[in-house]
Amino acid sequence: MIIQLDPTISEAAKADILSRINDLKYKVTEVNTQRAHYLVAIGKADIDLRTIGQLPGILDIHRVSDEYKLVSRKWRVRPTVLDLGDGVRIGEGSLSIMAGPCSIESEAQMEKIMQHLVDNDVRIMRGGVFKPRSSPYSFRGLGMDGLKLFHQMARARGIKIITEVMQVSQVEEMHDYVDVFQVGARNTQNFNLLDALGGVDKPVLIKRGISGTLEELLSSAEYVFSGGNEKLILCERGIRTFETASRNTLDLNAVPILKEKTHLPVIVDPSHGIGIRDYVAPMALAGVMAGADGIVYEAHEKPEEAASDGAQTLNFAESARLVRNLRRVYALRQELE
Amino acid sequence: MIIQLDPTISEAAKADILSRINDLKYKVTEVNTQRAHYLVAIGKADIDLRTIGQLPGILDIHRVSDEYKLVSRKWRVRPTVLDLGDGVRIGEGSLSIMAGPCSIESEAQMEKIMQHLVDNDVRIMRGGVFKPRSSPYSFRGLGMDGLKLFHQMARARGIKIITEVMQVSQVEEMHDYVDVFQVGARNTQNFNLLDALGGVDKPVLIKRGISGTLEELLSSAEYVFSGGNEKLILCERGIRTFETASRNTLDLNAVPILKEKTHLPVIVDPSHGIGIRDYVAPMALAGVMAGADGIVYEAHEKPEEAASDGAQTLNFAESARLVRNLRRVYALRQELE
Amino acid sequence: MIIQLDPTISEAAKADILSRINDLKYKVTEVNTQRAHYLVAIGKADIDLRTIGQLPGILDIHRVSDEYKLVSRKWRVRPTVLDLGDGVRIGEGSLSIMAGPCSIESEAQMEKIMQHLVDNDVRIMRGGVFKPRSSPYSFRGLGMDGLKLFHQMARARGIKIITEVMQVSQVEEMHDYVDVFQVGARNTQNFNLLDALGGVDKPVLIKRGISGTLEELLSSAEYVFSGGNEKLILCERGIRTFETASRNTLDLNAVPILKEKTHLPVIVDPSHGIGIRDYVAPMALAGVMAGADGIVYEAHEKPEEAASDGAQTLNFAESARLVRNLRRVYALRQELE
Amino acid sequence: MIIQLDPTISEAAKADILSRINDLKYKVTEVNTQRAHYLVAIGKADIDLRTIGQLPGILDIHRVSDEYKLVSRKWRVRPTVLDLGDGVRIGEGSLSIMAGPCSIESEAQMEKIMQHLVDNDVRIMRGGVFKPRSSPYSFRGLGMDGLKLFHQMARARGIKIITEVMQVSQVEEMHDYVDVFQVGARNTQNFNLLDALGGVDKPVLIKRGISGTLEELLSSAEYVFSGGNEKLILCERGIRTFETASRNTLDLNAVPILKEKTHLPVIVDPSHGIGIRDYVAPMALAGVMAGADGIVYEAHEKPEEAASDGAQTLNFAESARLVRNLRRVYALRQELE
Repeated sequence: MIIQLDPTISEAAKADILSRINDLKYKVTEVNTQRAHYLVAIGKADIDLRTIGQLPGILDIHRVSDEYKLVSRKWRVRPTVLDLGDGVRIGEGSLSIMAGPCSIESEAQMEKIMQHLVDNDVRIMRGGVFKPRSSPYSFRGLGMDGLKLFHQMARARGIKIITEVMQVSQVEEMHDYVDVFQVGARNTQNFNLLDALGGVDKPVLIKRGISGTLEELLSSAEYVFSGGNEKLILCERGIRTFETASRNTLDLNAVPILKEKTHLPVIVDPSHGIGIRDYVAPMALAGVMAGADGIVYEAHEKPEEAASDGAQTLNFAESARLVRNLRRVYALRQELE
Repeated sequence: MIIQLDPTISEAAKADILSRINDLKYKVTEVNTQRAHYLVAIGKADIDLRTIGQLPGILDIHRVSDEYKLVSRKWRVRPTVLDLGDGVRIGEGSLSIMAGPCSIESEAQMEKIMQHLVDNDVRIMRGGVFKPRSSPYSFRGLGMDGLKLFHQMARARGIKIITEVMQVSQVEEMHDYVDVFQVGARNTQNFNLLDALGGVDKPVLIKRGISGTLEELLSSAEYVFSGGNEKLILCERGIRTFETASRNTLDLNAVPILKEKTHLPVIVDPSHGIGIRDYVAPMALAGVMAGADGIVYEAHEKPEEAASDGAQTLNFAESARLVRNLRRVYALRQELE
Repeated sequence: MIIQLDPTISEAAKADILSRINDLKYKVTEVNTQRAHYLVAIGKADIDLRTIGQLPGILDIHRVSDEYKLVSRKWRVRPTVLDLGDGVRIGEGSLSIMAGPCSIESEAQMEKIMQHLVDNDVRIMRGGVFKPRSSPYSFRGLGMDGLKLFHQMARARGIKIITEVMQVSQVEEMHDYVDVFQVGARNTQNFNLLDALGGVDKPVLIKRGISGTLEELLSSAEYVFSGGNEKLILCERGIRTFETASRNTLDLNAVPILKEKTHLPVIVDPSHGIGIRDYVAPMALAGVMAGADGIVYEAHEKPEEAASDGAQTLNFAESARLVRNLRRVYALRQELE
Repeated sequence: MIIQLDPTISEAAKADILSRINDLKYKVTEVNTQRAHYLVAIGKADIDLRTIGQLPGILDIHRVSDEYKLVSRKWRVRPTVLDLGDGVRIGEGSLSIMAGPCSIESEAQMEKIMQHLVDNDVRIMRGGVFKPRSSPYSFRGLGMDGLKLFHQMARARGIKIITEVMQVSQVEEMHDYVDVFQVGARNTQNFNLLDALGGVDKPVLIKRGISGTLEELLSSAEYVFSGGNEKLILCERGIRTFETASRNTLDLNAVPILKEKTHLPVIVDPSHGIGIRDYVAPMALAGVMAGADGIVYEAHEKPEEAASDGAQTLNFAESARLVRNLRRVYALRQELE
């Protein structure tokens, strides 16, 4: 069960609640986030919630049968909306478009892409500075120097930044230069990293593991939330199946399923999801129609010269057309019965 | 390579062509369909197509590097459109909606569903009379008696019928009572059945195997085409993955990939594809946005009382809303850049 | 529940039993096999088995909670052993080795392989005469003429034959020329074929579908058993996963799991299972160590010239060594605690 | 290509080699391990190795076409054998048995298990002190205090320790208390962790990711090796497939494939691999027969009371019997042709 405490609760009242729950042999985790103070209690005894709920200092109490608790829609029905500032929001009520190169490569490259984003009113730019690569001999990104330049240039243009964090020690280092931390598919179950991100007050987008179940994705989000950070976004980015016609199998089923199971925003990444340029646009449009709150995709002035992922990256003409179409599809979705 | 022969070709001219190809050590298959006469020649010698193409009696000649030949878009660029009569078409230029129960159960059940279809201007009804069931103790359908009644009632209302054929001996038996033969996911590689369907002049919808690659699906279609029947439709109906949150994983990636690789119409079955009622509508809409030529889904007056598949079946109110939304999404798709 | 009837039961007694079961709203299937007469009753009412079991004419009665009933080890604890005649048995107490080419190609080829089998005291030969091929343009086997020659030559040498049946109409045609019918991985859920094989008195080996669960495999065996044929063998032959380092993923986990869940013999096919010659022998040996009752593998005088599957086929030297090693591993397995 | 440098090479000679390789536009990585000094050069130019190989200061030079280089058997044919001291070795020539509980729980628990290991001459004990758990509310292990006690007790009994490291900051902290670092299935592609383990002189066992390809596993090993640590062990521990009859699908195909592709030792973990106690022993025996250099499994005095993974853990009687059988199977394997 999840208990939301009154922010003005006295220590005595809280101790009383904890004692009552301990008597039930429930295990309690205290969760303090940016927004509120909760107790998550897990146990087997069959109880009448009202016997706890009536205690002083409790705002509300809910039973949640899912493995994950705080991210469940059974507890919080109202969708979570994140405010990145300057009128940029992620979550129900708007369509978030995030675009940019696989890797941040140079000032000149960023200059061009940012202009493209501004021209198309895209407010969030993606781009990797720390790159997880399966071979140790591949390009591993520009690191903090790249990020600082990325941040400086984006600020000057009113653009928000999302970029991948790969390890605990980077969380503090990167903190002031990102608007959204991205946890990549290979780190979805890097629990130490999730714990660390629970301690910051910045949004975190968690990508689904390449063979991660949706329940595992929700449990990973629960790690961050229970660590103290409610600002969470989930991202479907393709799973591994037997099919070899595309790099991955973008699993759009995840969109309606997640939208029902959690109050968190759900974003679709068709670039990694299908991995072949020609199919990125139809899958992006289908993702919005399935109910996604946003799309993140790879765009580059000259995809064929990109340092990584060129085969799945759109050029600027394709990107601009996609943005226009995405907005029309989103507009229709809001009108449907 | 594929050679299309002049219908008026002389035996001598044809013999000459075959002799030239044999000299190249190519293996030749003669294909006579409803529309034309082809030679499919497969071999390794590197040849100048013009040396063959200039022979008398040849209309055109193409090299096709895919495993499948006659169903490849590398050979036939123009999309295939099937005409079921009475103004009902399947393929580019229209959105085909096919709905109905998992199983044909009774006259009363069909009466209600057909009225629902007529009310919503849905022209094609699905419904099984021979049911493939993983347990021998489950309901296996009403058989030919059910089909005859289904056919009679549908004819009276201007409705076309699609139903599953499970074995060779049923092909002839069912022939006069169906408008489209359906090959189910468990029979996608039942090559004898595909051969038999190559011998009839009725459309055949082939469902993707539950772990079938797209290339295998196209090769199964090639069986029917090379057997003499060009009237083919492909259907994505969900694949088997590690994910257990839904019955299957509807693979919408299949839609843009198939639309690029073949000239055949592509239909999406969200009912089997995701297997949970609440998610059928968003996935159907997403399927159309991804480029599908049609949707086939399960509808029943009282899904909770259906003889099979109730958990993934829409009731009439949900079905009517889905039809209206599908048409709006399709209309928008045609307007997009 | 499964009721075994006394073979001398009177019609009246049987009618009484059926009437009692009908009162419970159980659905009954009568099963008459080579060995006995059973009633399989499926329903939800919670009953005391003794109230039925004491009725006259009942030999025994068991409750079986599995989806499959007659093939479950919860019902029949003693392992099934099949006798092919001439001292050739399949099932616990012996190690069955089945070897031969993917396809029967010619008299000369069979001559050589049979001599190899005789030299190594291998008593069962595999070889396809009807070949399921994913492309319609591939070699499809020698058909009945090949089978008749295969049969004649095998009989002369005391060799038993296992070969694949692909469709219902072949069952009768092939019947007198095979010792074991094989149902291939693409036909594991060809329920009409399974029904037809329920009507014959010859052993049937059912291969696991390429993405078939073990429960589905057991349910397919249940089809044949409930159709009247108890002579069943199950075969693990590799499943489809994300891994591309081998053609398929031989799932040896299936061996101990099936041995616990069913009384039927379990055979392993490492040739199709892993699909690469160098790995066939270690996986075959591992299969026996995991508990398999036998191994079926592909051998050919000159694998590089085989009409199909050459890359996974052993030559005679490799085959002879494998046979010797298999027997040593099996001998050790029987000695282990 | 991989160049092994003479340890006494002069700076000038090395600079000359690097300059020649740079001229070819190859990218060079210098690798200094416990054993030697290598240059790994990757590029596209087609060169005659001898033009480089003859330069002073080069011991040998090889071309390696695999994605992974230093772990490839194309480069180093001789199998790697690791010496843990006190006569405990891992790699060809011996069978490594590693057993112990999922989690280190208490001194009393360790006391009992260590006695069991000593009684059965098992020299390596597994046991987690940092536990990766998919839910943040689960038991996460005893941490460093548990490890220190584990180490002290094991040293007193001549037992070597293998335990999981989850993040970079733990590498230094744990270093003096472990004999083998284990990288868990969720961290197989935690590249920062792999980099950090490249900097230590202790063996590292890397588990295959739950949906990791064998090529990815080898590339992860390449990370550690190219970071400076040659002491590597690979571990197959089950993959995720569609099958639900067991927790995971232990992929024994990995054993012969890895043994051919790399010179590193290969260990099998049947406990996580199949996840059900009754099947652990047959799969362990099959793993050795398939060619594994060792087995790691879970054992506990009272599995039903274990803090985690009880359902896949052997009790002491089962464990002792397994050890005896493993040794007999290994002995036979060495005798086979």
